[in-house]
Amino acid sequence: MAEAAPVVTAALLVIGDEILSGRTKDKNIGTIADYCTALGIDLSEVRVVPDVEDEIVAALNAMRVRYDYVFTTGGIGPTHDDITADAVAKAFGVGISHDERAVAMLRERFPNPADLNEARLRMARIPHGAGLIENPISKAPGFTIGNVYVMAGVPSIMQAMFDAVAPTLKTGVKMLSVSLDTGGLPEGAYGTPLAAVQKAHPGVIIGSYPSFDGQRFRNQIVLRARDAAVLEQARAAVAAMLETLASPNPAAPPATS
Amino acid sequence: MAEAAPVVTAALLVIGDEILSGRTKDKNIGTIADYCTALGIDLSEVRVVPDVEDEIVAALNAMRVRYDYVFTTGGIGPTHDDITADAVAKAFGVGISHDERAVAMLRERFPNPADLNEARLRMARIPHGAGLIENPISKAPGFTIGNVYVMAGVPSIMQAMFDAVAPTLKTGVKMLSVSLDTGGLPEGAYGTPLAAVQKAHPGVIIGSYPSFDGQRFRNQIVLRARDAAVLEQARAAVAAMLETLASPNPAAPPATS
Repeated sequence: MAEAAPVVTAALLVIGDEILSGRTKDKNIGTIADYCTALGIDLSEVRVVPDVEDEIVAALNAMRVRYDYVFTTGGIGPTHDDITADAVAKAFGVGISHDERAVAMLRERFPNPADLNEARLRMARIPHGAGLIENPISKAPGFTIGNVYVMAGVPSIMQAMFDAVAPTLKTGVKMLSVSLDTGGLPEGAYGTPLAAVQKAHPGVIIGSYPSFDGQRFRNQIVLRARDAAVLEQARAAVAAMLETLASPNPAAPPATS
Repeated sequence: MAEAAPVVTAALLVIGDEILSGRTKDKNIGTIADYCTALGIDLSEVRVVPDVEDEIVAALNAMRVRYDYVFTTGGIGPTHDDITADAVAKAFGVGISHDERAVAMLRERFPNPADLNEARLRMARIPHGAGLIENPISKAPGFTIGNVYVMAGVPSIMQAMFDAVAPTLKTGVKMLSVSLDTGGLPEGAYGTPLAAVQKAHPGVIIGSYPSFDGQRFRNQIVLRARDAAVLEQARAAVAAMLETLASPNPAAPPATS
């Protein structure tokens, strides 16, 4: 009955010394993870690399052959440390030069020719053959070449670019998820029966996630599947298991068969 | 005069479906980046991989031969989805079993033998030959094998484990950094002269980092070097450059970015 779910995968390459030094705390990983999940794309790997061309090229080439899409963030501004466009051109073995479409976009922001200086024109250097990704906030575009989408590092601009890109992406069957709070039950109390539920429901990915507020742990069990009926069966099994553990009365029957 | 600075490198492997799905927003990358910078260790790469043994093994083996240290976070709890210890054992080609030292630590937390059940004992499964990393919060230890340090994913526990590990790490000459606010000067206005300063000061890594508050950009120029005198020379050059740009024509309205 349920046909094989088409799975679409993606990877994210975060480019920037400032993330690795701790100066800037990345926000784009979580945002892009949320976007992908909402779209029905499996974000399958993330890498953070420094502003070093060979590192960017190597990571990009490793990821773009493996996943349906690669998103990148960072390194497309007007300063010398913005080297992403050159690295992408190198990874694809194509040339790079000022793109007239991109120059036109920058002219909207800098109508005075004196303001559209060498540094700002750097933001119009686009690998040959790439399409542009509009930037409604500050005009300097991102771009897409092959299965790679190159976006800004500034979170609000990255989000605007992703919004522009999202409708053009192929998507898979969405991964559905449901969370159960364990009501104070510790992981150690339900680890073994939860493993049995996982084994009995191989079509569902079950995770247990503790958080610690400094005083006590609080645990969530998260179930994920692309098939709603399969997900519900597993959810009911976990709920019954938790109920049995919380009220260990042998007379209480399990909620479902 | 200045001798070659000894550089110590590290990579971070974040393990967990919950980060890639967006359910959990990672906080450990930024924390470990800060720790490394403070210690004099260059965090050089980060990867996030799912709870899939082959992925963990492949990432770990790629990183551990390349960097002085590899830190991992996540996947060492008592539930079936906690597979990091097994993956590390596989990566190193060693066996794994219940470690008596780890069992003793767990006994402190679970003095009643009935509480130290199969699931909780899972947290005492340690690759053969590994040393333990103490966990003052919830006792279940992390471990270290070769140049790999395996820590919890819960941020407060990861931090406690890193605090235990830090004094044992070799460290390099600390990377010093200084930031200059560009006082409203846009990146496009200083991109070209900043590139000239970078070229004249190859011993310093200069980055320009915009942030956008929804209204306007604010930029910071960050200079990093291991040699304080070299750093100060470059800082003075950037400050002079910014002053020149800010002062020549006070009548001109400031550009927006």
